[in-house]
Amino acid sequence: MGYPISIEDLKQFRQLHSKTPGHPESGTPGIDVTTGPLGQGISNAVGMAIAQANFAAKYNKPNYKISDNHVYSFFGDGCMMEGVASEACSLAGHLQLGNLIAFYDDNKISIDGATTLAFTEDVGARLTAYGWQVLEVPDADTNYEAIAKALEKAKATTDKPTCIKVTTTIGFGSLNAGSASVHGSPLKPDDIAQLKKKFGFDPEKSFDVPSDVYDYWRLVADKGEKANQEWDLLFEAYCQEYPEEGAEISRRLAEKLPENWEKLLPVYTPQDKAMASRKMSEIVLGKLEQDLPELIGGSADLTPSNLTRWTDAVDFQPPALGIGSYAGRYIRYGVREHAMGAIMNGIAAYGANFKAYGGTFLNFVSYASGSLRLSALSGHPVIWVATHDSIGLGEDGPTHQPIETLAHFRAIPNLMVWRPADGNEVSAAYKVAIESTVTPSVIALTRQGIPQLEGSSIEKAARGGYVLSDVENARLILAATGSEVSLAVDAAKELTAGGLPTRVVSLPDFFTFDHQSADYKKSILPDGIPVLSIEVMATYGWGRYAHAHLGLDHFGASAPAKDLFKEFGFTTEDVVAKAKKVDAYYADKEVLSRLDGPFSF
Amino acid sequence: MGYPISIEDLKQFRQLHSKTPGHPESGTPGIDVTTGPLGQGISNAVGMAIAQANFAAKYNKPNYKISDNHVYSFFGDGCMMEGVASEACSLAGHLQLGNLIAFYDDNKISIDGATTLAFTEDVGARLTAYGWQVLEVPDADTNYEAIAKALEKAKATTDKPTCIKVTTTIGFGSLNAGSASVHGSPLKPDDIAQLKKKFGFDPEKSFDVPSDVYDYWRLVADKGEKANQEWDLLFEAYCQEYPEEGAEISRRLAEKLPENWEKLLPVYTPQDKAMASRKMSEIVLGKLEQDLPELIGGSADLTPSNLTRWTDAVDFQPPALGIGSYAGRYIRYGVREHAMGAIMNGIAAYGANFKAYGGTFLNFVSYASGSLRLSALSGHPVIWVATHDSIGLGEDGPTHQPIETLAHFRAIPNLMVWRPADGNEVSAAYKVAIESTVTPSVIALTRQGIPQLEGSSIEKAARGGYVLSDVENARLILAATGSEVSLAVDAAKELTAGGLPTRVVSLPDFFTFDHQSADYKKSILPDGIPVLSIEVMATYGWGRYAHAHLGLDHFGASAPAKDLFKEFGFTTEDVVAKAKKVDAYYADKEVLSRLDGPFSF
Repeated sequence: MGYPISIEDLKQFRQLHSKTPGHPESGTPGIDVTTGPLGQGISNAVGMAIAQANFAAKYNKPNYKISDNHVYSFFGDGCMMEGVASEACSLAGHLQLGNLIAFYDDNKISIDGATTLAFTEDVGARLTAYGWQVLEVPDADTNYEAIAKALEKAKATTDKPTCIKVTTTIGFGSLNAGSASVHGSPLKPDDIAQLKKKFGFDPEKSFDVPSDVYDYWRLVADKGEKANQEWDLLFEAYCQEYPEEGAEISRRLAEKLPENWEKLLPVYTPQDKAMASRKMSEIVLGKLEQDLPELIGGSADLTPSNLTRWTDAVDFQPPALGIGSYAGRYIRYGVREHAMGAIMNGIAAYGANFKAYGGTFLNFVSYASGSLRLSALSGHPVIWVATHDSIGLGEDGPTHQPIETLAHFRAIPNLMVWRPADGNEVSAAYKVAIESTVTPSVIALTRQGIPQLEGSSIEKAARGGYVLSDVENARLILAATGSEVSLAVDAAKELTAGGLPTRVVSLPDFFTFDHQSADYKKSILPDGIPVLSIEVMATYGWGRYAHAHLGLDHFGASAPAKDLFKEFGFTTEDVVAKAKKVDAYYADKEVLSRLDGPFSF
Repeated sequence: MGYPISIEDLKQFRQLHSKTPGHPESGTPGIDVTTGPLGQGISNAVGMAIAQANFAAKYNKPNYKISDNHVYSFFGDGCMMEGVASEACSLAGHLQLGNLIAFYDDNKISIDGATTLAFTEDVGARLTAYGWQVLEVPDADTNYEAIAKALEKAKATTDKPTCIKVTTTIGFGSLNAGSASVHGSPLKPDDIAQLKKKFGFDPEKSFDVPSDVYDYWRLVADKGEKANQEWDLLFEAYCQEYPEEGAEISRRLAEKLPENWEKLLPVYTPQDKAMASRKMSEIVLGKLEQDLPELIGGSADLTPSNLTRWTDAVDFQPPALGIGSYAGRYIRYGVREHAMGAIMNGIAAYGANFKAYGGTFLNFVSYASGSLRLSALSGHPVIWVATHDSIGLGEDGPTHQPIETLAHFRAIPNLMVWRPADGNEVSAAYKVAIESTVTPSVIALTRQGIPQLEGSSIEKAARGGYVLSDVENARLILAATGSEVSLAVDAAKELTAGGLPTRVVSLPDFFTFDHQSADYKKSILPDGIPVLSIEVMATYGWGRYAHAHLGLDHFGASAPAKDLFKEFGFTTEDVVAKAKKVDAYYADKEVLSRLDGPFSF
């Protein structure tokens, strides 16, 4: 098909540095999304279908159908057992995504054995209940005509996604056909030989593609190339007739942001009023949507809490429902966090510079751990708007209050975990997140009000960590994030006034900070000054920067936020007392910056 | 009903230290399971129904139906959108759990507004596809008789779970009835007044329960008390006729393990052969099941990989399928990790000392983050058998290789995260996990073979951390877990021989180690000796014990395990080189144990 993968690459299957790993990975040319973890692929496909529908609704014009592709997906019994697939398929049915065609490989075998062990539901009836069209090909091992016919019918259906249930035999043709063993184990030589013979191949040859097969696929590739050329011509004409849209599409396909887009980001001064950072996030989204048609987002049924919907947003909805349109950019995900994550990955994978964001409570981003990890692994720069980010959410109690969450996310490679301390830091988080091309972001935001800080700026915060307030000959550093930064500021003032000169460092994102130069980082957290971290969550991991920690290594409680901060030791008084202990403890000790060591960690 | 919760407690709704938090928490008397995070409650109920079916199948005798309770659950639209609920309901249908009755509160409102925004599927048809009986009460605001009738029908149905779909009005009677706003906001005074009036209460009175209501409920409570007395008599007679089973039930209800049960745990010497720790786990399970009828477990469709099924285990299956029985203790969970976690919580919550375990790959325990967190918060001592615990799994590649996983789990309060280094440590992990009454465990196990170590023992490992091998005047400590401990041993031998005396510390579980005495811990990781941690995963969090880290702060790759360990710097040679750097770096520096500080972290 013209992708740079050769037969030699195939021989390197599952070997180090090969292009052919054990599961599809999106780094390989021609692979759209990384799958393997079950249920993700079909959910990514729902995201791609949403992206296509949105792109088409926005840009197609009479006589210029510049986007009309279908999205195809394969899923198996295992995928259908996974909750993430259920969530995504239910949403796809609601959204009436006629551009989505999924093959259900109904081979009745999973790793434990026959699906009768654990999975006796009627998958077709379930998908029908979700609003899908379900077509069946009961003899799909051999009846290719029936498959082709089902495909035609699926393509002709525009108001619902289609599942083509193909009943197959796993390992068809092998001596182990129909058994679980063919899922993961290579076939034995004699089995391979009889299999090749059975299907008309030379059993003596390995890694051999007969020339007529090559030739046939070359024709398929040529057809694709021709279609691409035709599209180029169509788009050229489109640009003549719709120069504005044409330029916008060109920009998006080049994955470039509009010039000066970042000027939309609000800037704050300490005189500006205190508010919840979720509110500041809402303000940012309301600004960005004006210049960024690629911004598409929603919430997992927490819109009034996440504040993810800008005024006058149009919902992304099937036209038939009369409550939005496919050109709308606000997605009502329902209470489906895991699918939201996987769908965002699919939207990002679709291309066209789509910037997907999704809102939920920070604690429930964990429900989506499976897809969040894949965002990071595959390099989809999606954005989680994660509000209610601590015990500061108050009355909902410990089931809703994150403790381990930031540690979990910070330990994931290639993931930004922003916890902004004020309006400028919120703007900085969005600036870096939107500009990111391969790194996803979680932006943790407060439910409760926080003040605008003296000393913050978008530029400084965009480095992930910086000195917010300093004094001469600082003897102590308070390093904090989010709502605890203003607490650090108050405590530092008192400490400095009391004779313990204290610097305040804000560390809104560890990932970004870690990527600054060694000199810069060392200027923030130098040798000789002990660092006390302050964050109302697990202290786990803070040893990376700080010598002592004020955190929360137990679950929270249901009570007004103010009572909780007091109960758990997060008042100015508490911080001052702890800080003095740190100062006394390190008075006679050598203090090395935690940034240094015999080698980088 | 006799629970120690008073009207005064109700007045403390959502206040600090009250018995009435914002969501049901299992610490409150009368609350079976902690819910609030959507989809967990119904999934817990499936677990309780499994436990009941197993208990009844094992112990009921002709004329002695000592267990025949139903499990009741309420769920709403939000729950049904969550994947975890889909997984659990699909399994409940497969298992034909006739003892499960769930009310679906079909009020067509979620937090974003009308469910038409995101949830237009046919829930009844979906549950029917799962194998449920679905009964409908379309006018459930007022038609209590129809509800009672549906309940009777549900109780009479023994071969499938029943969903009673009650169509209701959210906030029925309030001026805001039918709107999303009544979900979380208190009613205004005038609204409360008219509501009370409408339903025949005195609008002037607050927190007032009319005496006839009290009296009625007292009758209900009396009925329960009487039933309990009858059961006591029945059980007394049962114990006469079936003394062995009676004693076993009494022991289980007292939540005591059989005496000397731990003698079943295998003990190894360095002469015993190397094997994968998942295999050692299989051996432990095969021993324990003999004496622990309360042991009930399974795998999320990875039985042949997790090795969670002992020889001759009987599957927990509905008798009608002919492939097991309700007396069986091996659960075929299907590819449903999140539900497996929530179901294990339900099994644990059922009581009778049930010890629930569930197998999957370590990396896919993350799919169950939502329920794992609730195990820890609620104190359900369930056990995750988490195999394929590192890049050591090899060819499956980065989608399957944990990096952040241990950091994530270690940051969760009240969770043991075992990563045993050999057979004795595997036995120790199970010993502590099985004896635990309020702390769940994740036991991370290798796919690849690891040797039996000199210096390990169940007793030592059961402290969470210990000196595995020591030398006089150690100048360096290598602290490792799991498969990296033998690597540390090899490197330490070479280092010591080369003039750098090196101690090896094995840290199989941070949680347990952290709970040892300060003196003990300090004896393991004393002042003056730098610690180099070795673990093929994220280094995040290791700063708690170690001064420098050898870890993996990026994703893995698909290749044979041996190649990966070499590629990523986990050979004896690599460790020796790093260790020398650590020694050189700290030669002229004061080395304080990371265990100490101005206050405990």
